[in-house]
Amino acid sequence: MPHNQQIVLDNRPQGEAVASNFRLVLTDTPALEDGQVLVRHHYLSLDPYMRGRMNEGRSYAAAQRLGEVMMGGTVGEVVESRHPRYAVGDKVLGMGGWQEYSVVDGAAVGALRPVDTSHVPLSYYLGAVGMPGVTAWYGLVRIIAPKEGETVVVSAATGAVGSAFAALAKARGCRVVGLAGGADKCRYALQELGFDACIDYRQYAGDVKALSQALKPACPNGIDGYFENVGGPIMDAVMLRMNAFSRIALCGMIAGYDGAPLPMRNPALLLINRTRLEGFIVSEHMQVWPEALTELATLVGAGKLRPRETVAQGIAAAPQAFLGLLKGKNLGKQLVKLI
Amino acid sequence: MPHNQQIVLDNRPQGEAVASNFRLVLTDTPALEDGQVLVRHHYLSLDPYMRGRMNEGRSYAAAQRLGEVMMGGTVGEVVESRHPRYAVGDKVLGMGGWQEYSVVDGAAVGALRPVDTSHVPLSYYLGAVGMPGVTAWYGLVRIIAPKEGETVVVSAATGAVGSAFAALAKARGCRVVGLAGGADKCRYALQELGFDACIDYRQYAGDVKALSQALKPACPNGIDGYFENVGGPIMDAVMLRMNAFSRIALCGMIAGYDGAPLPMRNPALLLINRTRLEGFIVSEHMQVWPEALTELATLVGAGKLRPRETVAQGIAAAPQAFLGLLKGKNLGKQLVKLI
Repeated sequence: MPHNQQIVLDNRPQGEAVASNFRLVLTDTPALEDGQVLVRHHYLSLDPYMRGRMNEGRSYAAAQRLGEVMMGGTVGEVVESRHPRYAVGDKVLGMGGWQEYSVVDGAAVGALRPVDTSHVPLSYYLGAVGMPGVTAWYGLVRIIAPKEGETVVVSAATGAVGSAFAALAKARGCRVVGLAGGADKCRYALQELGFDACIDYRQYAGDVKALSQALKPACPNGIDGYFENVGGPIMDAVMLRMNAFSRIALCGMIAGYDGAPLPMRNPALLLINRTRLEGFIVSEHMQVWPEALTELATLVGAGKLRPRETVAQGIAAAPQAFLGLLKGKNLGKQLVKLI
Repeated sequence: MPHNQQIVLDNRPQGEAVASNFRLVLTDTPALEDGQVLVRHHYLSLDPYMRGRMNEGRSYAAAQRLGEVMMGGTVGEVVESRHPRYAVGDKVLGMGGWQEYSVVDGAAVGALRPVDTSHVPLSYYLGAVGMPGVTAWYGLVRIIAPKEGETVVVSAATGAVGSAFAALAKARGCRVVGLAGGADKCRYALQELGFDACIDYRQYAGDVKALSQALKPACPNGIDGYFENVGGPIMDAVMLRMNAFSRIALCGMIAGYDGAPLPMRNPALLLINRTRLEGFIVSEHMQVWPEALTELATLVGAGKLRPRETVAQGIAAAPQAFLGLLKGKNLGKQLVKLI
């Protein structure tokens, strides 16, 4: 029975999330029962949606419960199996949480998915060829549904979702414009991710008009589709440049997770532009995953989607890495390497 | 050449629209050229969208130009014709504007539509069996697309759009809840329009939480569809009661026409509820008009849609009637009778 270090949610954030919201716990993995599988996690995924779950109250997902292991996606390896479908050494994707090991019911539908690491690195199944990639795919393909030549914009452009969004949109002949925090990120967006333009929103410090002005030369034909990860003044600025019959895929509003709701400054623009806006959660659209993952893996294989990763070492580093993600300190997918 | 009294836009509102923004002008109707038709207007339609056009700047429609006759829908009678398709005495619907007569190019597609007054009163073609009715139809049928048993809500419930919305939604087996200003309007909504419940929002004076509480017993299963005519705190309150996978048809935001943009307090609810919101203008969806008008006329004929009208007398009364409409003084369709 190996030791298992875990991170549990100790208390809920009052405003901004802090390290003391989390607690490191040391346990032993239990002896397996029939049908169970023991997975050793190689990588833990850190994602902005986790911040929303730390709050109490109404959201689309049940709140993370106090004293329980933080939920989260993991990739790893079967190290013990009492289920015939899984053998020791199998590489699997699951929702193992912020811990080194997890015990999984091998019969539970969708709890573990075997992954093929012969062409795609294991960690990519948490990023470009995983939930964030499919998130980008759903918002772009099913909500924005761009025509060739249209201009699409994404906030948090250099994150795991934004990176995949750029590759998918370029494959459809779109002009792709990113919003990111800092000159380094914008350079990366242009040089490696295929963005046609990238705006460093930090230069405009919440000045909606100035940011909107900066978008003008980047989007000379206006904006047809917007993939929203952030909310707040960035969204307000983008909305000022949107075209008639534009579409907004509303995926995240990370800017408002810490406190009072962040308003939308001028919702009448949605009427003026006859915009269609749709909020979505990718886990509710499992039917698109096979098609989306196939395209994402093909783009990775062809070198058209070259995701970067920011990797923290060891489970104890997870809280600080997560807080850094919320502040935009990562470049690309934020992971924690556990082995 | 009959005299023709006209109302022109003299100057743009600074904040709230006032009577002095308009000017009454007396002209003569010109002699007809070949292909032209002279229409004498029986009724002028007054509609909230006109307020938006009085402002300068970006909107979905060109702004009303200064010194020109206010645009608006009219029904009337051909009194002189130099086009073979029209005969003196024909009843026609058009966009004649705020004046007693208009000269129309008989060949222009869609400029005049002959209407049959044998079963439907002429004025209804400006209301229940006209643009407002089709507006309600499009938002309900094409955007909200309710299932039987779902709960739908409409603001400005006793106006021309809201009245039609109620009848169309009841015909689809929905629970229909209205928001209106004043006890009289709510009584009318319940007793004559078929609403299952109606909330007098004036009792809550912009208190989003209190209005949302009032909606709770009226919508015991939450809100699946919302038809928005108003915006501002009313929309904020409704959004707090919306269900997962709800839909919002964004038709008007009259609350924000007078000044600074009215914010949406908590747009993250659109994400939390995976809401689909769509702004629309009914004149851009001409393909649905025949189907919608057929259903609306049938509902009127069957007594299931019994629209009321508030009728001002004479073109000179149009500005005051319009300002009253913006303040919600009308019950049902606001018209100006010109003959």
